[in-house]
Amino acid sequence: MSSTIGNRVRLSIFGESHGEAIGCVLDGLPAGEPLCMEEILAQMDRRAPGRDQTATTRRESDTPRLVSGVLDGRTTGAPLAVVIQNENQRSGDYGNLGRLPRPGHADYPGHVRYDGYNDIRGGGHFSGRLTAPLVCAGAICRQILERRGVTVGAHILRIAAVDDTPFDPVNLTADTLRSLAASGPLPLLEPDKGPFMRAAVEEARLQADSVGGIIEAAAVGLPAGLGSPMFDGVENRLAPLLFGIPAVKGVEFGVGFGFAALRGSQANDPYAFDKEGNVVTTTNHNGGIIGGITNGMPLLCRLVIKPTSSIGQKQQTVDLETGREAELVVKGRHDPCIVPRAVPVVEAALALGLLDLLESEACTLRP
Amino acid sequence: MSSTIGNRVRLSIFGESHGEAIGCVLDGLPAGEPLCMEEILAQMDRRAPGRDQTATTRRESDTPRLVSGVLDGRTTGAPLAVVIQNENQRSGDYGNLGRLPRPGHADYPGHVRYDGYNDIRGGGHFSGRLTAPLVCAGAICRQILERRGVTVGAHILRIAAVDDTPFDPVNLTADTLRSLAASGPLPLLEPDKGPFMRAAVEEARLQADSVGGIIEAAAVGLPAGLGSPMFDGVENRLAPLLFGIPAVKGVEFGVGFGFAALRGSQANDPYAFDKEGNVVTTTNHNGGIIGGITNGMPLLCRLVIKPTSSIGQKQQTVDLETGREAELVVKGRHDPCIVPRAVPVVEAALALGLLDLLESEACTLRP
Amino acid sequence: MSSTIGNRVRLSIFGESHGEAIGCVLDGLPAGEPLCMEEILAQMDRRAPGRDQTATTRRESDTPRLVSGVLDGRTTGAPLAVVIQNENQRSGDYGNLGRLPRPGHADYPGHVRYDGYNDIRGGGHFSGRLTAPLVCAGAICRQILERRGVTVGAHILRIAAVDDTPFDPVNLTADTLRSLAASGPLPLLEPDKGPFMRAAVEEARLQADSVGGIIEAAAVGLPAGLGSPMFDGVENRLAPLLFGIPAVKGVEFGVGFGFAALRGSQANDPYAFDKEGNVVTTTNHNGGIIGGITNGMPLLCRLVIKPTSSIGQKQQTVDLETGREAELVVKGRHDPCIVPRAVPVVEAALALGLLDLLESEACTLRP
Amino acid sequence: MSSTIGNRVRLSIFGESHGEAIGCVLDGLPAGEPLCMEEILAQMDRRAPGRDQTATTRRESDTPRLVSGVLDGRTTGAPLAVVIQNENQRSGDYGNLGRLPRPGHADYPGHVRYDGYNDIRGGGHFSGRLTAPLVCAGAICRQILERRGVTVGAHILRIAAVDDTPFDPVNLTADTLRSLAASGPLPLLEPDKGPFMRAAVEEARLQADSVGGIIEAAAVGLPAGLGSPMFDGVENRLAPLLFGIPAVKGVEFGVGFGFAALRGSQANDPYAFDKEGNVVTTTNHNGGIIGGITNGMPLLCRLVIKPTSSIGQKQQTVDLETGREAELVVKGRHDPCIVPRAVPVVEAALALGLLDLLESEACTLRP
Repeated sequence: MSSTIGNRVRLSIFGESHGEAIGCVLDGLPAGEPLCMEEILAQMDRRAPGRDQTATTRRESDTPRLVSGVLDGRTTGAPLAVVIQNENQRSGDYGNLGRLPRPGHADYPGHVRYDGYNDIRGGGHFSGRLTAPLVCAGAICRQILERRGVTVGAHILRIAAVDDTPFDPVNLTADTLRSLAASGPLPLLEPDKGPFMRAAVEEARLQADSVGGIIEAAAVGLPAGLGSPMFDGVENRLAPLLFGIPAVKGVEFGVGFGFAALRGSQANDPYAFDKEGNVVTTTNHNGGIIGGITNGMPLLCRLVIKPTSSIGQKQQTVDLETGREAELVVKGRHDPCIVPRAVPVVEAALALGLLDLLESEACTLRP
Repeated sequence: MSSTIGNRVRLSIFGESHGEAIGCVLDGLPAGEPLCMEEILAQMDRRAPGRDQTATTRRESDTPRLVSGVLDGRTTGAPLAVVIQNENQRSGDYGNLGRLPRPGHADYPGHVRYDGYNDIRGGGHFSGRLTAPLVCAGAICRQILERRGVTVGAHILRIAAVDDTPFDPVNLTADTLRSLAASGPLPLLEPDKGPFMRAAVEEARLQADSVGGIIEAAAVGLPAGLGSPMFDGVENRLAPLLFGIPAVKGVEFGVGFGFAALRGSQANDPYAFDKEGNVVTTTNHNGGIIGGITNGMPLLCRLVIKPTSSIGQKQQTVDLETGREAELVVKGRHDPCIVPRAVPVVEAALALGLLDLLESEACTLRP
Repeated sequence: MSSTIGNRVRLSIFGESHGEAIGCVLDGLPAGEPLCMEEILAQMDRRAPGRDQTATTRRESDTPRLVSGVLDGRTTGAPLAVVIQNENQRSGDYGNLGRLPRPGHADYPGHVRYDGYNDIRGGGHFSGRLTAPLVCAGAICRQILERRGVTVGAHILRIAAVDDTPFDPVNLTADTLRSLAASGPLPLLEPDKGPFMRAAVEEARLQADSVGGIIEAAAVGLPAGLGSPMFDGVENRLAPLLFGIPAVKGVEFGVGFGFAALRGSQANDPYAFDKEGNVVTTTNHNGGIIGGITNGMPLLCRLVIKPTSSIGQKQQTVDLETGREAELVVKGRHDPCIVPRAVPVVEAALALGLLDLLESEACTLRP
Repeated sequence: MSSTIGNRVRLSIFGESHGEAIGCVLDGLPAGEPLCMEEILAQMDRRAPGRDQTATTRRESDTPRLVSGVLDGRTTGAPLAVVIQNENQRSGDYGNLGRLPRPGHADYPGHVRYDGYNDIRGGGHFSGRLTAPLVCAGAICRQILERRGVTVGAHILRIAAVDDTPFDPVNLTADTLRSLAASGPLPLLEPDKGPFMRAAVEEARLQADSVGGIIEAAAVGLPAGLGSPMFDGVENRLAPLLFGIPAVKGVEFGVGFGFAALRGSQANDPYAFDKEGNVVTTTNHNGGIIGGITNGMPLLCRLVIKPTSSIGQKQQTVDLETGREAELVVKGRHDPCIVPRAVPVVEAALALGLLDLLESEACTLRP
């Protein structure tokens, strides 16, 4: 199967960009959790297109209906299904994709995988639009996490060559994460970098090109002792979720690839006690996870988002019908940079993974 | 559960560094596959300590016994169990770890996770020694893969500040991968870099310190059309395996984090036909995977290995019994750089993941 | 999680009896399979209430919308989601169930499990109505199975004390199974038994009581060699699906509990060759499965359906609010016998399980 | 995969009857649980052959070595591996099985499934001997369950035509279950039935034949609220484990197939309060499970064990080499009745399933 993930809290996503509806089923949620619909809509609005000039001008209404699993504003413990009707498609823009696969897109491998029967209109099930139900599911999970003292958040660490400052790995707070989520389309620790990022995107857009970037995500409030060594650790569980976000091609925890430049004496996080007598580390190169298990410090990860594959320039491809090489210009409205809209998607995936982890492992932790 | 992974070909690893035995069960192997024991031993020898001055001087005999699932040199289709007896432990070196958790190691989170009952002698189940059964399992899988035309391999891309040249992402051949595996303790595309890497490790060792690095791994011969979008794609399946290797803190596919510096017009891999009329891409920034599905090009990934946590320098920690801060000097024999020994481990994890993928999905591919 | 099952073809069911909608997601279907909507509706109509006097007089329109995973009448390989809007509820009938759990229903254990937050209107997610999406999913799977030469079917083996004749375990044909499915609300090998069964149900109904029964299901056309010993055999895979049907309390394969009365010399199925030279057995006590693996003979299983829990008689229960014992009369319209409507549900579960098995294991079989 | 099962507590069984060793890996056990090796050996001794004239005269030493996951007599939370060396095989008895498949055994479907490469000596991985590691795993789980107030047990309900009295479904106690386990090779509520059962077995043995029977198993002490509706309920989880026991062809819960003869007014279990104010049912036809969820009453299930397939009489089979029909006399030492030795196996499977359930779901229950 392709679009199902999770152990105790399990997500199954369905839909195509130009089909009748998209949505998901969240199976295994705890019962009795109050859900705030406004918070769900607020998260979905962060991901919606048309909010910022870095993004496409398409508008989606994207109103999710929670058709099961909720009663009187609380989860019932039964599967929670979300249905989002599709509107505002322009199918005509995508006519010859079956013949001329777009470079950077899954058209060709999808054609082979599904014997030519996959829905290619607007990317079909591969479309970035399928992240809408993921954000909705994550918006539900983060409400439950917040009540358990866990806050997730993310910011843009890089767009093109413009860098934001990284998170303070030791002193990061829930308030910082929450204010990022509320800060508008470009969540940044240094908001002054926003105009430079916008300029870089605009420059690419004017050249019918696109840019990528890096998102840094975090969670604070996790207890120590969650996860396992080997194949069921926190990194093992989060990575498949994060790689499920379209355009993600790399995931690292803590300083990640930066470890290659450190000595062990620099990389090891020394232990100490904080004022309340809790065990803490005085640095946090490991991003809150050692040996697959949380150590109570902020969980930190970074993801690279490749530049949007849909660009307006002429590209080389092949004609699968004639067997000849061909040129292609991808039409339609596209994001010259997907990074800002990917921020709430990353947060959603993180929230889903962490709630699943807590629900799976809470019984192994003593109170 | 912690140490079990896979869909159709499923691996369950057991054992502790200083227990009676370590090993694994490989369930779901196809029947009738001839296994060459010498090749298995050759792979295990690549991982064994004491082969090179970058590594510890400990010696392990590490002879695996295949106690089930094999008859007359062929797999039977029944679970294949491997048992490796432990020898040559020096438990005395690890006396006070229960009180004084080592920075960079899982001692503290493991203590919380397992309520203090985890076996801490030599790292217990968290020990790098547990990669021995993984290499054994991988050695079995790669023999089966080779008969299906798939070859895996890896090289050291970086140790400390010394870089090897990356793989040629388009023209990489099985012969290159095989010759790397046969090239000794430092598999490099530019063997001249070996002495510089050794010098960097030796310098750290003399300072009672350690260094990390980056491994680049690859597979050639995979058909197009393996994998799925969203959560069951090739990256989603390989990442949890690769993060299961101790000290791995980042995984990227293709140019990975390098995508952040590229424009879409540079990043997209244009399609063309090769001389036999097969669809190929003229660049391979995506590492052979687009939308979670193989496109028939070489599969490429990179992993960062953090510097060995066990160093001879004095480190800050806490005394969990007295509740006071404390200093710790880790004794015992340790690798100042684990990267060379991690290369066959990475190859093994990759082989296991790819065989599982092929066995899971082969039925969806038309011949 | 509760309502998700399957390996490669995975089903996730959602909805409550009195919620906005019910439905399911089928993830992992093969691509390019034509689907006949009329056949789907025909199967759903077999399960719908109000068709026969053995059943409730409620009417459901139950028109399923296939909102994803289908294009131009064929599966795309993407998740296929089904949404069925709910209508015609009478919520008022179920007012005090939270206080007074109904004997035989899941009200009390559900109350404990979900901390009182489960939706109890009409049984909520426990309602037999949730078998509608299962039948829809099964109707899809059986169309695919038919094209691979596999036919499923079932008949009523017993209602109250009235028995139908069992399947011929050796010579059962696809035509027999198909004609049963087309034969109306009481699928029987001896249609003359229908009036007696109806009389038994009517007698119970007049006494405000209910009756149960036994369903015998079968599949023909399966190749030998599907399944595995131990925990992943055909019986192991089908049983959790079949026990997922409400009111099923027992599952047996072949002669099942009848084996207790046989000697080994009677029970063993002798081997022979048929006219085409295929290996067959001359008896089929094992129901086509030995050691968890198909042997090419008809697959046979039986399920017991307990008498409908909702009866009009006064019953003893407890008042969870006052802590006192209480009496309860369940109101609303109920089936005095659920067995006839359960027949297509059993067939659907069997079809789903067998398609999942074929998709999972086909690659292990040589053509 | 074939021989792996479980969610949080996961069992992977390996080995063949005539291979070097058999055993298992138990992954996901809670840490800090003291294990009594004598109790483990006592359970394994109950399953061992040669204890009673109903069984084969073969002797197995069957001493399990716990090679990992245990330190100072307590579980560490790491995978617990068990290795049992094989001894005392007589391979010569099984020479022509590859050509002449034995009726009732998996020889033929296994031959197809594994392309002729499966180990057929002594049944290979299909051998009843593989229940030894299952009993060992169960012996570990039941010790943990006992400390949580849950006791499992079983008795022979029927051998041939001789019946024992069924469990008292309402008043069954842990003491009754424990005394059954300690009562010798024929655990019976009415020990007077033992000689009649022995006579029935002896009569079959003298005719070179075999008999089957029914085992009734139970667990007391389970809290209400464990399990889920649909596909992840208690029955759905236990059934695949129980069908994993060789020769089991039917599983029922509570009165099971007896429900077909009951009216709803008889079948529904009325609620009441016990002296301590707990909700109980005054009957227990549902065997402690309603809607897939425990209700706090004794859990009751029954399994049918088919008569031993290996009999000394001449049987009809086919010669897979010559393509001709043939006659076969199975040699070797065989149990004329496997039911008594299956009792501890059933208990072990039940214990494993219930510990997995408790570990998976305990976090959903409020204390």
